[in-house]
Amino acid sequence: MPDIIKECQAAWTAVREKSPLVHNITNYVTVNDVANIELAMGASPIMADDENEAADIASIAGAVVINIGTLNSRTIKSMMKAGKAANEKKIPVVFDPVGAGASALRNETTEKLLKGVKFAVIRGNVSEISYIAGVSANTKGVDVSDSDKQRDKLSIAKTVAEKYGCTTAITGEVDVITDGDRSVEIRNGTAELSRVTGTGCMTTGLLGGFAAVSEPFAAAVCAVASMGIAGERSLEKHGKAGTGSFHIGLIDEISLMNGEIFIERAKINEL
Amino acid sequence: MPDIIKECQAAWTAVREKSPLVHNITNYVTVNDVANIELAMGASPIMADDENEAADIASIAGAVVINIGTLNSRTIKSMMKAGKAANEKKIPVVFDPVGAGASALRNETTEKLLKGVKFAVIRGNVSEISYIAGVSANTKGVDVSDSDKQRDKLSIAKTVAEKYGCTTAITGEVDVITDGDRSVEIRNGTAELSRVTGTGCMTTGLLGGFAAVSEPFAAAVCAVASMGIAGERSLEKHGKAGTGSFHIGLIDEISLMNGEIFIERAKINEL
Amino acid sequence: MPDIIKECQAAWTAVREKSPLVHNITNYVTVNDVANIELAMGASPIMADDENEAADIASIAGAVVINIGTLNSRTIKSMMKAGKAANEKKIPVVFDPVGAGASALRNETTEKLLKGVKFAVIRGNVSEISYIAGVSANTKGVDVSDSDKQRDKLSIAKTVAEKYGCTTAITGEVDVITDGDRSVEIRNGTAELSRVTGTGCMTTGLLGGFAAVSEPFAAAVCAVASMGIAGERSLEKHGKAGTGSFHIGLIDEISLMNGEIFIERAKINEL
Repeated sequence: MPDIIKECQAAWTAVREKSPLVHNITNYVTVNDVANIELAMGASPIMADDENEAADIASIAGAVVINIGTLNSRTIKSMMKAGKAANEKKIPVVFDPVGAGASALRNETTEKLLKGVKFAVIRGNVSEISYIAGVSANTKGVDVSDSDKQRDKLSIAKTVAEKYGCTTAITGEVDVITDGDRSVEIRNGTAELSRVTGTGCMTTGLLGGFAAVSEPFAAAVCAVASMGIAGERSLEKHGKAGTGSFHIGLIDEISLMNGEIFIERAKINEL
Repeated sequence: MPDIIKECQAAWTAVREKSPLVHNITNYVTVNDVANIELAMGASPIMADDENEAADIASIAGAVVINIGTLNSRTIKSMMKAGKAANEKKIPVVFDPVGAGASALRNETTEKLLKGVKFAVIRGNVSEISYIAGVSANTKGVDVSDSDKQRDKLSIAKTVAEKYGCTTAITGEVDVITDGDRSVEIRNGTAELSRVTGTGCMTTGLLGGFAAVSEPFAAAVCAVASMGIAGERSLEKHGKAGTGSFHIGLIDEISLMNGEIFIERAKINEL
Repeated sequence: MPDIIKECQAAWTAVREKSPLVHNITNYVTVNDVANIELAMGASPIMADDENEAADIASIAGAVVINIGTLNSRTIKSMMKAGKAANEKKIPVVFDPVGAGASALRNETTEKLLKGVKFAVIRGNVSEISYIAGVSANTKGVDVSDSDKQRDKLSIAKTVAEKYGCTTAITGEVDVITDGDRSVEIRNGTAELSRVTGTGCMTTGLLGGFAAVSEPFAAAVCAVASMGIAGERSLEKHGKAGTGSFHIGLIDEISLMNGEIFIERAKINEL
């Protein structure tokens, strides 16, 4: 068994034992699912985005998650303050650049955050990570454009990992994760995950929980593979019922998951 | 089979094939359901309400949906910018005047939007559309007052359709839709739909998806009838379980729906 | 049968008959669940948080619910205006001090609201109510710290009830409710309720609905016990499925509940 699988198993045990506080500044579309999936994994989520408390809350958290899904001028300031406060205390910060490449505001904010905050992990789809890598992307709203699907994901992820000194995860049909040193691909998941809003945000939420109890690369691998496994298991139970039931099943499966289920199901290949 | 049914069948095929980007500026109460039901129908939703990106996003969308369910001074500006940007590019804009008639702020905003933006479709309950028609309404919060339920819905809808040159849909126990020229009533649906928040917003969300691929009248009929059918089918499966399961079932049924199910179930009468 | 049980039974009948309008200024994490659980109980929720309409909407409501879960400078003003407008019209106001004790902003806002608004009921976990009682609390984010779990909840609740002339409810494994005069403990519920976000907010939402049709102490007992019963019944049906299904089951069970189920299940002891 590769080391990374053992690290993921340990991360599952640790998150349930330690119940880390995860501070999320995220979007109002998927925030309920992010809170519920973090509770389902055993973490303790808090959502606080006013600039007068963002730094206070970040300072007592085990990890901070910043997601620009519905950013606005009010919360951008809070993201910066939370990120900086976490950096000062060596609390890991996870970044989800939702829709980077799709509007000037998202691009500028992404750049501002990348300059002002040191991230432990960046997770996005191939369009978003391509934008950060400086490869010209063809973002279509918050989903991936068809032309972007054909890119060389490992080389793009490595560019970002090296440029920003962080673990980078590109999620999609096949997920690619690298910290510049170690790299894996993950072949869990199902196409239905793209028919529910926020499965990316939820993955980043899980990543926050794991980052509070393990090092960034293992946290990213564990979060991304766990979401894929949850998708497969939910589809087995609810596939014929429709996407509403499949969505609820994702939370169910994370609440039932543990190191054993993870080992049995994970399809992780070192690259 | 009336032409409108065939147009709806074609709309279902088109939305699944083309997966149009739908830009929603909506309320934070029901936004997750709106995104999920648009994904379930085959569209690609994006929620972006900052005034610095509203026009950018609207310009690349197939349709724009404006919903004033939890409006505030920040998002009113974004609604205007998104609506005007869409108008310039001939992108259809759909309006859901949630709670119009219930507060001065909602009334003023409704009037401002009607003046500044050309809507392809306006959808609301009879209290909200009566307010827009200039008939004195008795809005009770965001739900319909009992006295408003007895109104002559077709004449009110026609008043709005003619005044604003748009398709107008009044949804309720019996739905009435008109573009001033063609008019229908729809007898799908179930009373349980009023026991779940956001079924109106979700209908408007569907309308955005269909408006991106068909003309406004057909889009409105298809969206309203589809939601009614989803309600009937969800009730058949989950009626005894309660309103939480019924709610999830609505998303399920839209994800399973297609032109064939639509034709089999739709109860649409020309007026 | 103790009087309080009969009052709760009457509250269930009344809320379904009168369908009171409940104005909620709450957080965007759990707002959809709050609206849906209020609809499930038979009430008519409205969420309106702009300072230009907060007073208008509060004035026509049967009860107002103020929840500081994701407060920000914009909505703090609206909370004050809604609370004051309701006070003027003798409309009951319910307060959920989410995370009081966890940040300076939450503490200052809690104090400002307690000074400016007369509350009929305050409901929180033991950390939050301890903070309001002036007992030094150890709030960990929005969840209860382990050391706070051991406190003498009745004495803390009485301190708050007397200081602010209101019913005070501390919810947790065993719930304690007092209006200074009458006091009860409630032994319904299940540990799974703490693995779903917003079960506290939902309880406060139910409390708003009941406060519109009965006096505050009975409203609090009815809401807290009903949520506990819903938790037990949902667990019986969905316990093995996971926390996502358990969550949906909570809404289901409130939609199915009535005075008879309440009487059969309620575990309320006078103190």
